[in-house]
Amino acid sequence: MPTDQNPDFFVRHAALLDQAVECAADRTYWTPYPETPSTSVYGPEASRLGEAAFQGLLGRPFRIEGHPSTGTVPATEVSPYGFPLGISYPYLPPEVAVATAKSAASAWRAASPDTRAGVAAEILARLNEAAFEIAYAVQHTTGQPFTMAFQAGGPHAQDRGLEAVAHAWNEQTRHPVAARWSKPQRKGGPLVMDKTFTTVGRGVAVLIACNTFPTWNGYPGLFASLVTGNPVVVKPHRRAVLPLAITVRIAREVLAEAGFDPDVVLLAAAKPDERTAPALATHPDVRIVDYTGSSEFGDWLETNARQAAVHTEKSGLNTVVVDSTDDYAGLLRNLAFSLSLYSGQMCTTPQNILVPRNGFPTDQGRRTADEFAADLGAALHRLLGDPARAAATLGAIVNDGVLKRVAEAAELDRVAHPSRQITHPDFPDAAVRSPLLVRLEAETDEETYTSEWFGPVSFVIGIDSTAHGLRLLHDTVRRHGALTASVYATDEGVLEAARATALEAGVNLSENLTGAVFANQSAAFSDFHGTAANPAANAALTDPAFVTGRFSVVQSRRHAPTEEHADA
Amino acid sequence: MPTDQNPDFFVRHAALLDQAVECAADRTYWTPYPETPSTSVYGPEASRLGEAAFQGLLGRPFRIEGHPSTGTVPATEVSPYGFPLGISYPYLPPEVAVATAKSAASAWRAASPDTRAGVAAEILARLNEAAFEIAYAVQHTTGQPFTMAFQAGGPHAQDRGLEAVAHAWNEQTRHPVAARWSKPQRKGGPLVMDKTFTTVGRGVAVLIACNTFPTWNGYPGLFASLVTGNPVVVKPHRRAVLPLAITVRIAREVLAEAGFDPDVVLLAAAKPDERTAPALATHPDVRIVDYTGSSEFGDWLETNARQAAVHTEKSGLNTVVVDSTDDYAGLLRNLAFSLSLYSGQMCTTPQNILVPRNGFPTDQGRRTADEFAADLGAALHRLLGDPARAAATLGAIVNDGVLKRVAEAAELDRVAHPSRQITHPDFPDAAVRSPLLVRLEAETDEETYTSEWFGPVSFVIGIDSTAHGLRLLHDTVRRHGALTASVYATDEGVLEAARATALEAGVNLSENLTGAVFANQSAAFSDFHGTAANPAANAALTDPAFVTGRFSVVQSRRHAPTEEHADA
Repeated sequence: MPTDQNPDFFVRHAALLDQAVECAADRTYWTPYPETPSTSVYGPEASRLGEAAFQGLLGRPFRIEGHPSTGTVPATEVSPYGFPLGISYPYLPPEVAVATAKSAASAWRAASPDTRAGVAAEILARLNEAAFEIAYAVQHTTGQPFTMAFQAGGPHAQDRGLEAVAHAWNEQTRHPVAARWSKPQRKGGPLVMDKTFTTVGRGVAVLIACNTFPTWNGYPGLFASLVTGNPVVVKPHRRAVLPLAITVRIAREVLAEAGFDPDVVLLAAAKPDERTAPALATHPDVRIVDYTGSSEFGDWLETNARQAAVHTEKSGLNTVVVDSTDDYAGLLRNLAFSLSLYSGQMCTTPQNILVPRNGFPTDQGRRTADEFAADLGAALHRLLGDPARAAATLGAIVNDGVLKRVAEAAELDRVAHPSRQITHPDFPDAAVRSPLLVRLEAETDEETYTSEWFGPVSFVIGIDSTAHGLRLLHDTVRRHGALTASVYATDEGVLEAARATALEAGVNLSENLTGAVFANQSAAFSDFHGTAANPAANAALTDPAFVTGRFSVVQSRRHAPTEEHADA
Repeated sequence: MPTDQNPDFFVRHAALLDQAVECAADRTYWTPYPETPSTSVYGPEASRLGEAAFQGLLGRPFRIEGHPSTGTVPATEVSPYGFPLGISYPYLPPEVAVATAKSAASAWRAASPDTRAGVAAEILARLNEAAFEIAYAVQHTTGQPFTMAFQAGGPHAQDRGLEAVAHAWNEQTRHPVAARWSKPQRKGGPLVMDKTFTTVGRGVAVLIACNTFPTWNGYPGLFASLVTGNPVVVKPHRRAVLPLAITVRIAREVLAEAGFDPDVVLLAAAKPDERTAPALATHPDVRIVDYTGSSEFGDWLETNARQAAVHTEKSGLNTVVVDSTDDYAGLLRNLAFSLSLYSGQMCTTPQNILVPRNGFPTDQGRRTADEFAADLGAALHRLLGDPARAAATLGAIVNDGVLKRVAEAAELDRVAHPSRQITHPDFPDAAVRSPLLVRLEAETDEETYTSEWFGPVSFVIGIDSTAHGLRLLHDTVRRHGALTASVYATDEGVLEAARATALEAGVNLSENLTGAVFANQSAAFSDFHGTAANPAANAALTDPAFVTGRFSVVQSRRHAPTEEHADA
């Protein structure tokens, strides 16, 4: 039998959970899951064993103990590094997945938030133990370079998961489970009522994950829904099933050990030509949807999945405004790396770089927009000159859509720096591409730069002045959204104006990044990923608003026994 | 100039705010605003002055200092007690109201949560000072009896307002406004970033208020939106403008004294034949909607006001399940009062009373459903026998729609207790009606009892057994919603089953109410009004979920100055 008779996972992780709640509130640096894929941290055998585990999964059906299915999803995944994974998965049609999750959930719903948080923390601990296996799975579904796949797909995703656990647990335990209400009366003794307050999950949750960051973007919703008492149907992207299949396998193992029905977490991989996300998201029993992906489908979900609380992270126009700098070399190095990391295939990669057309001051003299584009191209060349180092930064192009987009951008009028094909030293069939820069003008090229060009395509856009750039930042973010904005300026007044603009536009701002922090990175327990204040996302991953809509508080009340409160 | 140079209201109310946050969390009894309309509390002159203030408003244009307008809304209000109020109001078309609110909001948005909470607490203090004036305004727009109009329209509404202030203030101050992030590096010193976290309101809020509880149901949304930095356009019901006009007048006075643009709060009364709520709620600049009223328009808002966070409280089927009692007289007294209070014109009044057809045990012997209906009718008769007392309990019927509904119910087959017309001792033209009881059967009369009959109409519905009744409770609440559920049972096992059913249905439960607490009453700082877990409401008024969607956190980050963190 399940639940509160069996709370050992909560006891095991209570100190971690307390610390996570504290750190989620104070927003300073904290990570419980080491980000370095080194033997000193993960042990001498971890990397080898993880790779062996990954290799052992290839070319066969993926086994999840006791997972229901009505058939098989044939292999859909091909590594962007150039080989098919050949893994088939259990198949569950949407209707069956939702019904199974719903009927599995009663003990999980009835368990206490403590119990659920303990189980979630144990799942995260085991995901961390499997960090290398997951890293290879992420690398060969997303095309991320290995180190990034390890960090973003493993420990950083686990950080984001724990952050969601902390918020979900904390929000459910802010009220007591019982309270006595004693109202003084004008005559006689008080009116005394005993009340209970029980948190109740909203219902079945569906996680619709993306191709590029299946775990990092998926874990917040998965863990927020679980800890608030909801079963979760995990719908992976057809090209990035494996990282979430491993996650589901581990979650189910822990659920079963804790005495719960493992069908509280289900994998719902889609067949090659089947589109199941709309049916899953609009099923009347589905009350929570978490989604990462295109604005087109995200907007569709927000409009059509009316029966559910819908959390989306979509696309946008990440923007940089350049006013001045006293570290031009640092600026170029930082931006070049930002554009190169995972070939710009991050929802946070800068796309629109706004530069005063007629020049801006630097410690190396004035630079016009044309000169800046050339300098940034040279910085990209320096960063990516060595093929091995280039491949370790760029990773591989995730799918043909991105390749087509790069080809399309190469046809634009003023390519300032071309995208290069790079041969990966270990994977000769991998599609590796360096970033492409195009010179645009704010006035004449609006149609081009107000679309998202997801991938290694960025624009150096000539503007009249910094004020013009800030207006453009404001207007494009209000209309099209952004997850990141950056500004380079030496004057505190300009920085203040940029901050005010970013606040008004509702986008997070990075100021003068010239070192080893990049606009496209956000750190759990400190940075909020989104703001929910512009069209790029309606959720922050993770703040209280991300979890409060996943559960209700239902109360009961009755008169207190008179003998008890007579002497109260 | 406004804002944080001028925080005296925060200083004045800081202790109250701290206590409100504490009490909102612990859910025990607390009220800062005395509910008794007595001279010992409000002073010897308060009642007379309040009535005089109300009388002074009648028959003339309502003055709000500096309130913009493009014309006049002619008098639309008629007291349910039988006389026209004859008050005209400033007119603002939806487009102008939203634009004015938006352009007035910048200093208010930029003020700190502390400052905004202080201003809100001062508004509430002055609303409390005006409690008698507001009581008369509520009485003569809603038809509530005076004592209820005073309590529910005044102090209890202020409690609910302060509860919203507490949640809104607390949620915005859970993160620091600035934090230093220091990440250890494998080589060299740490990476150190200084970050700011600023709460930003979502945008213009619209409050769409109802006829029966303009302040009690309106204040939570009004204050939650204000304290989170949003301007509020108050759209009153055309028959209940005055209580909110006074509220807007007072709010604007305090805003102006604090140095803010008073247009942060605007009245948007509609002309007699104009329907402005749809245009207001779907305006692209409107980002928050709070609504109380019919399910039909509430559902429309949830479907169509997609650009906004929509909070609704709609209609439902409040249900009582009778299994057994050891205090039959108390049960009858309690239920009779519940049905009579304000002629059943509360969103929380029980409608469907499910009674075992063949009888249930009481301390006065077994009672069949027919006998119970007769006994409840007799209890109503006892309670309402004296016309003065009856009028003080029933109040007046709020509008012709309710009168028609009573007439329609009187035509049903098995009226067990008729509605009586009662002559109000002070207001001979008031429409005063006692509750009507109809006997129905669960199987054959579903069409009748699955509609809401808002007003003094309730059904004694024959069921096979308690288990049948709990199933019916579950199914009708899941499908049609409810704000309240009650159970009478002597056996703890039955009470447990009722609790489990209520949890599953997502409705708050009252158990064995036989004294001076009634199913239709909910106490701020202890009872959550709704659950957001069934179709009757998507909001609780007030919990964290009610406020977290009204603002975002936007951050900035930059490298910390190196000289500072060198020795950190």
